[in-house]
Amino acid sequence: MGMIGGGPGAFIGPVHRFAAELDREIELVAGVFSSDPDRSRAAAGQYRIDPERAYPDLPTMFAAEKARADGIDFVSIVTPNHNHLPSARAALAAGLPVMTDKPLTATLAEAQELAGLVATAGLPLGVTFTYTGYPLVREMKARIAAGAIGPLRKVVVEYPQGWLSQPAEGKQAEWRVDPARAGAGGCIGDIGVHAFNLSEFVTGQKVTRLLADLAAVVPGRALDDDCSILLRFANGARGVLLASQIEVGELNGLRIRCYGEFGGISWKQEEPNSFTQHHADGRTEIVRAADASLGPWAAGRTRTPGGHPEGYLEAFANIYRDFAAVLRGEDAPLLPGIAEGLRGMTFIDTAVRASAANAGWVDLAD
Amino acid sequence: MGMIGGGPGAFIGPVHRFAAELDREIELVAGVFSSDPDRSRAAAGQYRIDPERAYPDLPTMFAAEKARADGIDFVSIVTPNHNHLPSARAALAAGLPVMTDKPLTATLAEAQELAGLVATAGLPLGVTFTYTGYPLVREMKARIAAGAIGPLRKVVVEYPQGWLSQPAEGKQAEWRVDPARAGAGGCIGDIGVHAFNLSEFVTGQKVTRLLADLAAVVPGRALDDDCSILLRFANGARGVLLASQIEVGELNGLRIRCYGEFGGISWKQEEPNSFTQHHADGRTEIVRAADASLGPWAAGRTRTPGGHPEGYLEAFANIYRDFAAVLRGEDAPLLPGIAEGLRGMTFIDTAVRASAANAGWVDLAD
Amino acid sequence: MGMIGGGPGAFIGPVHRFAAELDREIELVAGVFSSDPDRSRAAAGQYRIDPERAYPDLPTMFAAEKARADGIDFVSIVTPNHNHLPSARAALAAGLPVMTDKPLTATLAEAQELAGLVATAGLPLGVTFTYTGYPLVREMKARIAAGAIGPLRKVVVEYPQGWLSQPAEGKQAEWRVDPARAGAGGCIGDIGVHAFNLSEFVTGQKVTRLLADLAAVVPGRALDDDCSILLRFANGARGVLLASQIEVGELNGLRIRCYGEFGGISWKQEEPNSFTQHHADGRTEIVRAADASLGPWAAGRTRTPGGHPEGYLEAFANIYRDFAAVLRGEDAPLLPGIAEGLRGMTFIDTAVRASAANAGWVDLAD
Amino acid sequence: MGMIGGGPGAFIGPVHRFAAELDREIELVAGVFSSDPDRSRAAAGQYRIDPERAYPDLPTMFAAEKARADGIDFVSIVTPNHNHLPSARAALAAGLPVMTDKPLTATLAEAQELAGLVATAGLPLGVTFTYTGYPLVREMKARIAAGAIGPLRKVVVEYPQGWLSQPAEGKQAEWRVDPARAGAGGCIGDIGVHAFNLSEFVTGQKVTRLLADLAAVVPGRALDDDCSILLRFANGARGVLLASQIEVGELNGLRIRCYGEFGGISWKQEEPNSFTQHHADGRTEIVRAADASLGPWAAGRTRTPGGHPEGYLEAFANIYRDFAAVLRGEDAPLLPGIAEGLRGMTFIDTAVRASAANAGWVDLAD
Repeated sequence: MGMIGGGPGAFIGPVHRFAAELDREIELVAGVFSSDPDRSRAAAGQYRIDPERAYPDLPTMFAAEKARADGIDFVSIVTPNHNHLPSARAALAAGLPVMTDKPLTATLAEAQELAGLVATAGLPLGVTFTYTGYPLVREMKARIAAGAIGPLRKVVVEYPQGWLSQPAEGKQAEWRVDPARAGAGGCIGDIGVHAFNLSEFVTGQKVTRLLADLAAVVPGRALDDDCSILLRFANGARGVLLASQIEVGELNGLRIRCYGEFGGISWKQEEPNSFTQHHADGRTEIVRAADASLGPWAAGRTRTPGGHPEGYLEAFANIYRDFAAVLRGEDAPLLPGIAEGLRGMTFIDTAVRASAANAGWVDLAD
Repeated sequence: MGMIGGGPGAFIGPVHRFAAELDREIELVAGVFSSDPDRSRAAAGQYRIDPERAYPDLPTMFAAEKARADGIDFVSIVTPNHNHLPSARAALAAGLPVMTDKPLTATLAEAQELAGLVATAGLPLGVTFTYTGYPLVREMKARIAAGAIGPLRKVVVEYPQGWLSQPAEGKQAEWRVDPARAGAGGCIGDIGVHAFNLSEFVTGQKVTRLLADLAAVVPGRALDDDCSILLRFANGARGVLLASQIEVGELNGLRIRCYGEFGGISWKQEEPNSFTQHHADGRTEIVRAADASLGPWAAGRTRTPGGHPEGYLEAFANIYRDFAAVLRGEDAPLLPGIAEGLRGMTFIDTAVRASAANAGWVDLAD
Repeated sequence: MGMIGGGPGAFIGPVHRFAAELDREIELVAGVFSSDPDRSRAAAGQYRIDPERAYPDLPTMFAAEKARADGIDFVSIVTPNHNHLPSARAALAAGLPVMTDKPLTATLAEAQELAGLVATAGLPLGVTFTYTGYPLVREMKARIAAGAIGPLRKVVVEYPQGWLSQPAEGKQAEWRVDPARAGAGGCIGDIGVHAFNLSEFVTGQKVTRLLADLAAVVPGRALDDDCSILLRFANGARGVLLASQIEVGELNGLRIRCYGEFGGISWKQEEPNSFTQHHADGRTEIVRAADASLGPWAAGRTRTPGGHPEGYLEAFANIYRDFAAVLRGEDAPLLPGIAEGLRGMTFIDTAVRASAANAGWVDLAD
Repeated sequence: MGMIGGGPGAFIGPVHRFAAELDREIELVAGVFSSDPDRSRAAAGQYRIDPERAYPDLPTMFAAEKARADGIDFVSIVTPNHNHLPSARAALAAGLPVMTDKPLTATLAEAQELAGLVATAGLPLGVTFTYTGYPLVREMKARIAAGAIGPLRKVVVEYPQGWLSQPAEGKQAEWRVDPARAGAGGCIGDIGVHAFNLSEFVTGQKVTRLLADLAAVVPGRALDDDCSILLRFANGARGVLLASQIEVGELNGLRIRCYGEFGGISWKQEEPNSFTQHHADGRTEIVRAADASLGPWAAGRTRTPGGHPEGYLEAFANIYRDFAAVLRGEDAPLLPGIAEGLRGMTFIDTAVRASAANAGWVDLAD
């Protein structure tokens, strides 16, 4: 695996490295960690890879790695959003599969271009919609698909954070509030898209319409930092999606609650090793990572016995594990790919435009 | 105190009795518990009051009680919504103060009429917006008013229930889904108005605009059972109000989270004896009913030492305690009265009409 | 009901009044609230009873009330422990049933004397082991009795408090740390006995042996303020009972966990409206006050729908409700009576003496 | 790193591999994964290491690795307890530092021998007392050392599990209940020693006396599966240590609560990213992994921003990170080493013997 981005000070670069390597199916061996060659080399030291394989730019990396017997066989893109497309385009052109951080690209047009490139190249592309990697999220999906709550009626998905409640400072904050690098969405592109993806993943239903109310609450901010979005799903179910980065004191409080005609199910990311299931007979069950009742999607993605908490890195690693399976030619039906990435961009684009136009309910293209 | 409504099988009648009598400042001594004289007498037995004072109708009660030295000095109205106005009108005409369950009336027009009657009569009227009686809710109000979270930016208030997820059965369900008795609002009038009241109470800010999306999810239901409403407060703060009675497995999950420029605060009704406060310096505090830091609004409304949980009945009793103070001529600034009752009806009426018209953002009259 | 004790500044007197009256089966009408007549009258005002019926001493009360058609028909004893026996003795002699706060008396010898007096008088005596009044505690008892966890193997009951972590101040603290008024036990008599009673109540098993380690942690304290006690139950099950009043920050953290061969069950007083049940098939269930699966012991002792939290006062009222039933000649098998009271004193006495003698394991008399 | 043990079906071998490699300072490259050569090779495949470096026995591994330029520079011992000493002895003799799973050895005599060998060899030895690797456990230690709760008075440490509630089956269970492989302690050696180590680590106080009550609850079991132990610390503080493997439904419920003269602190392993701190001024704080107030011990051992839960593997990795620092010649004062390992064995040995003799309070040798 070769990394694109993830230089000194990065948050998500090291996370991709941890996640990719956890199961020892993948190894980070090369990268263009920064457009600044010195910084790229510095990152190589931090990642403890051969400094020779810290490259100054993509063409150099692709050429050098191709020449090696042990050259990289895919790239992982962890740059700010505006570099996703150029990086992916170059990698696909070099014949390399791509794993990219979310959102897929900075704009919908870019995403559509990328979807075309992927189709043409016939190469795998994965998107790290991390939260779908949690074993209990996969178990919720399995149970709902199996009818555990009956026909879906209502979804509430919330993603509260507080770290951008003040005018941004620091590398992580800076690019996320800059349209030139983040794209058209701020909060919606950074975390709202996770909530959207999670809601479709867990319920197995597509969102068909939405009503978006986005705002930049912090004075002077160019992009949204607080989003309230009403949803309709294909089967008629109603939904609410809330995402905010100005809710002081909230850390990474992604939560989802799904209700059907006969039951309900709820989960929160900060305590990811269990969820609550309300059964049709009135019982309330705490389903835990240890439980014998878990299906293969969940049971096959835990690494420790019950009560030994697994967290964000392990969930992230499950995405990479699926990607590794795909690289080996196996099936990995839960891996988020180009379709989910493109869908996320459609969501961001539709919501941003609808909110700006105060358009009320609008359709979300399929 | 004379009760109007609350006959056999009632839920809220006994609650009013518990609450009114808890502090021994008020005693239930008479009532028209049902329009059916037999049922009214049966209720008297259940309440253990003198059967002579279980009256068949209001005029009889008012006349008989007036003739007694120990006659009632106010009425408590616990009927379905459509009987609030007639009952209150009669009581005020008889010179009696009124405590009424929420919502104030079945329709806004009725509420406006009642507001006029109250003004003319010059008599106290209280409304049991119960949740404002919780000591820690009052403490949140006090802290926010004192600047604990800085200028308000965001409010999320949720009221999930699941008991009406199936076509209604039973006395409690039946009238709530019948427009002739409940009024124009279903879920919004039964619980949404509580959430609305709580949001204004805690924040000290008025809602000025809203966007309402109400639906009857259960097939064949005439009134809404699921509400998603976006809010704007007078100072520009954004809000989300969710109320539902079809979220299977949820009991009475009222929750509120308020965020300001420098802090945040959150509370949930099902664990009412503490709230979480995020401070400007990054600390997270669990404020408990026992804490020495509580101000007089909260400290004066608890009855047991910390760790001895108080609940719904005690919160309800705090509303009656305020009402008793008002009857004695004392000041009780936190008692919900005609203004709060009328405001709740304005909210219900505005939201129901806006949703029906798919009107997008509309103003909420002051 | 006539109250003995509970004068100005008392904590538990008002609690008894709330609890006794909540269901309107009992009314506080008289009392000797203090041995100081002025204070007794002052209390009458706070309780809002007829000042004529605030008596200076027991003989006066018994004589005066006997002479009334509406005289008291039982007494409630809420004094410090050393006055329980004299008060009960006098009441029984006057032909009045007795409800008394726990522990039954100050010493085991007194308890034995009282047991004899009760037997002779043939009058009901109840003891407010409050926590057995919680509906979900009763449900746990019912489920364990019905075999829900299989044969009992292990019990852990903990009662952490922190309010006596500093040398005592205030009326509530003062008498509890004074052997002349509290008796031989400090923490063990104040709260340890609750934990003991709860463990036998819930499991249906008697403690037959114990190993006690009691200490006065706060310098200068004459009575224990921290207790660690190992238990053996009649069927061989093992137990641990921890009680402390010096665990800074703990409020009233009574918790019990019971494990059998096939399941487990746990509950905590500070969140009393649910418990956790681990089933033999590996499922973990949250049993809630609302659940349709509750048996009559629990379902018959709740007053509000699920999600409307009930607390300490309501649990306390359930004890009085049972007592009222007994006064009416009905059966109330869950009411703690002289047997439970005497058993608690046997526990306190045995543990205090065994700890003082560093006696290791000792038998607990039947 | 070369692994000893951890063959097919092992639980803790893969955990050591994850943990060792997470920060990319260590790589698993060789091992004697099983005494059965075929199984050893099979394990190599699972770990994805060069099958050539899966050796049939220790002498072969040490010789072959010594001959390589990239040979292993330490071993990690993950066998059942009875093989810890022979493995460590051989590794030290081969000049290799040792990381070993806990408990240090099967018996105290073995531990003492190993301590001598380590002293003679002058080589580092680490012991994976995993739970001391949690960042917030380290923060508790730092705060208590800095006086946050005042002089220590009381410690309650509990370690409930339920997975051995039935007669053992499966590889993990089997050896743990076999004295020939586990040593003299069952539950106490498997998890009690973790609780003991944690209590001394967090408080900075040594246990000086104990009273142990151990039992084999499951019929036919040769070793203890349920332990209740009373403690005294050097400064006079009182303690309770509970460990059980027969509490049905409990997963890995390690918890610790520490109380001092002025405050209290508590943490539970299943939700490891926060702890509760009761302050001297009565405030209750939730300290979270994100907090700016964290000291360097904690802040330096987290890998993700607040709200991205870290768990057991990351805590385990922190132990390895300290070990890697020691291998580089750096200081790692929190790494559990031979002293902590020996101390754990002294605890196990003392408790097992005291319990068997029903000896009451006994001294715990320094």
